[in-house]
Amino acid sequence: MSSFAIGVDLGGTNLRIAAVDAEGNLLEKLTTGTQTSKGRDFVIGEMCDAIKAQSAKFSNRMTLEGVGIGVPGIIDKRTGMLRESPNLPGWDDYPVRDEIERILGAPVILENDANVAAFGEGWLGAARGYNEVCMITLGTGVGGGIVMAGKIWQGMNGMAGEVGHITVDPNGYPCKCGNIGCAEVYASATAVMRMAREEIDGGSAPELAELAALSNIEFSARAVFNLALQGDKAAQRVYDKVGWALGILVADLVNMLNLRMYVIGGGVSNGWQAFAPKMFEELRKRSMVYAATAPPDDCIPMGAAAKVESKQLPPYRTIVTRALLGSDAGLYGAARMPLNHK
Amino acid sequence: MSSFAIGVDLGGTNLRIAAVDAEGNLLEKLTTGTQTSKGRDFVIGEMCDAIKAQSAKFSNRMTLEGVGIGVPGIIDKRTGMLRESPNLPGWDDYPVRDEIERILGAPVILENDANVAAFGEGWLGAARGYNEVCMITLGTGVGGGIVMAGKIWQGMNGMAGEVGHITVDPNGYPCKCGNIGCAEVYASATAVMRMAREEIDGGSAPELAELAALSNIEFSARAVFNLALQGDKAAQRVYDKVGWALGILVADLVNMLNLRMYVIGGGVSNGWQAFAPKMFEELRKRSMVYAATAPPDDCIPMGAAAKVESKQLPPYRTIVTRALLGSDAGLYGAARMPLNHK
Repeated sequence: MSSFAIGVDLGGTNLRIAAVDAEGNLLEKLTTGTQTSKGRDFVIGEMCDAIKAQSAKFSNRMTLEGVGIGVPGIIDKRTGMLRESPNLPGWDDYPVRDEIERILGAPVILENDANVAAFGEGWLGAARGYNEVCMITLGTGVGGGIVMAGKIWQGMNGMAGEVGHITVDPNGYPCKCGNIGCAEVYASATAVMRMAREEIDGGSAPELAELAALSNIEFSARAVFNLALQGDKAAQRVYDKVGWALGILVADLVNMLNLRMYVIGGGVSNGWQAFAPKMFEELRKRSMVYAATAPPDDCIPMGAAAKVESKQLPPYRTIVTRALLGSDAGLYGAARMPLNHK
Repeated sequence: MSSFAIGVDLGGTNLRIAAVDAEGNLLEKLTTGTQTSKGRDFVIGEMCDAIKAQSAKFSNRMTLEGVGIGVPGIIDKRTGMLRESPNLPGWDDYPVRDEIERILGAPVILENDANVAAFGEGWLGAARGYNEVCMITLGTGVGGGIVMAGKIWQGMNGMAGEVGHITVDPNGYPCKCGNIGCAEVYASATAVMRMAREEIDGGSAPELAELAALSNIEFSARAVFNLALQGDKAAQRVYDKVGWALGILVADLVNMLNLRMYVIGGGVSNGWQAFAPKMFEELRKRSMVYAATAPPDDCIPMGAAAKVESKQLPPYRTIVTRALLGSDAGLYGAARMPLNHK
């Protein structure tokens, strides 16, 4: 009998549950809200009911290998408990994994959501076929995950891959983590909006000011990107700063890890066109290792890495590319954990 | 019959060869000069003669597992050839490993010298008993090595661990690598001397100026450190800058890798007392991960990590400490490679 697993993306806002088979085929996907206001036990109960209902549809003809859950926060793998999870208040110091395992009667693996996304992109996305991947996720904050030898690199206590808090400018903008000049304060969606407002306050960004005056909903990182695409100089300056910070960050990662594949995902990565030129310019300047191993024009077509890999790319190429799976990376990565664990 | 191996530290200036048994006991050590001016073949011939003579002394009662050689430069592990080795001119594009193997009739492993030092400190030095180690070597330049799961992390083409070229200040001093503000331009012996001269030129460093006027030989990173220890403010400012850069660098490493053990070695690490306070100050500020996992007073006694590890240190401690083995780290690490390879 063939295998399947349930992958869960348990966010502070959305709860997504998917059944995925061992070959990476999506069998079913459910998206619903996470009712965190009703408390931890309620959320766990709802989630477990949904997991049971979904797995029941497939377990007559396939073997459920287990349930993988991606969670925003730091997980103590030893105890299966959450540490520092601001988006899931009240979940600390509670045996989350053991409790879910008890309810479901199936093996459960908890993992940090950024790590899970890296694992998903490595399995089925931009880094398909690569055993080593570093992923940078540009969302509200900047997260990251490292896959080494085909496994998520946890670090000693699950805190590895905190690339968003790598210093890109020691005299820069303060970060809420206590540091100054973290990558996160230049390359997150929050940072894009702050830098756009700085441009407006500077008085030389009429288009941005107009956009901001229109509506708070319209004024997003995406809207700033659209303006940059239309040739707006102030909006482009904002994305140049994103590219500058990412160039320094990726150079640090390349110099340290010398992996073949760095994947950039998350909402802000939709602005790739606006930040990539500056990013690659900084990256070439700041990493000899990259300069010595880069594809001639830096960028390779999105998703092409996996396909052309063995045939067309010479060995020892460092590839920096966009994520392919969007928010599904986390679902696939979560499902992959129990499948891989066998 | 028990095992031994030959470890070689093939530097641009010195050639050191040691026989080490499987338990890490030093059986014999030879230090001589590397006569690079006589050319590659001469150096290889002399080295192989010395290796043969040394191993002959032990091979009647022990099995030679192989020869490990630490080399300054980048090694292509696939071909066993050197790439970019400025201190060994004329060694590029030559099958170094295969040629030495042919002469010796024994398995040979080539490895970058900073990686080998990390491996040595992990086996018998400050990181003894740790499976994951990141080592920073502060010499003429700044090098590094990463050990993961008990093995040297090569990266895709042997360029991993180039921590000296991680950006600590994007608007800082230019580095000969082409980047600006690398760790190397603040924390190497070369950088200490440059910063000391900047202090002299600034006119507020009478003691440093006097020292520099005395003799070029006396005016070294060590001499600047001695002045700092005696309370000289200008010399202390130089070492504060070393500590500042190392604090940023180690914070980046901790945020990315979340290892338990970071070891700082090389000549400049003798100035630990002068740069450590500033380094730990920056490190705590710039890495939440470190702040959450640091030993209460940062520093633990040199060499104590290995001994107290399992008993006294709580789990999930991040330790940043001085190297223990000095230049022998490279010899032990080199010998360990064939012993480990069995």
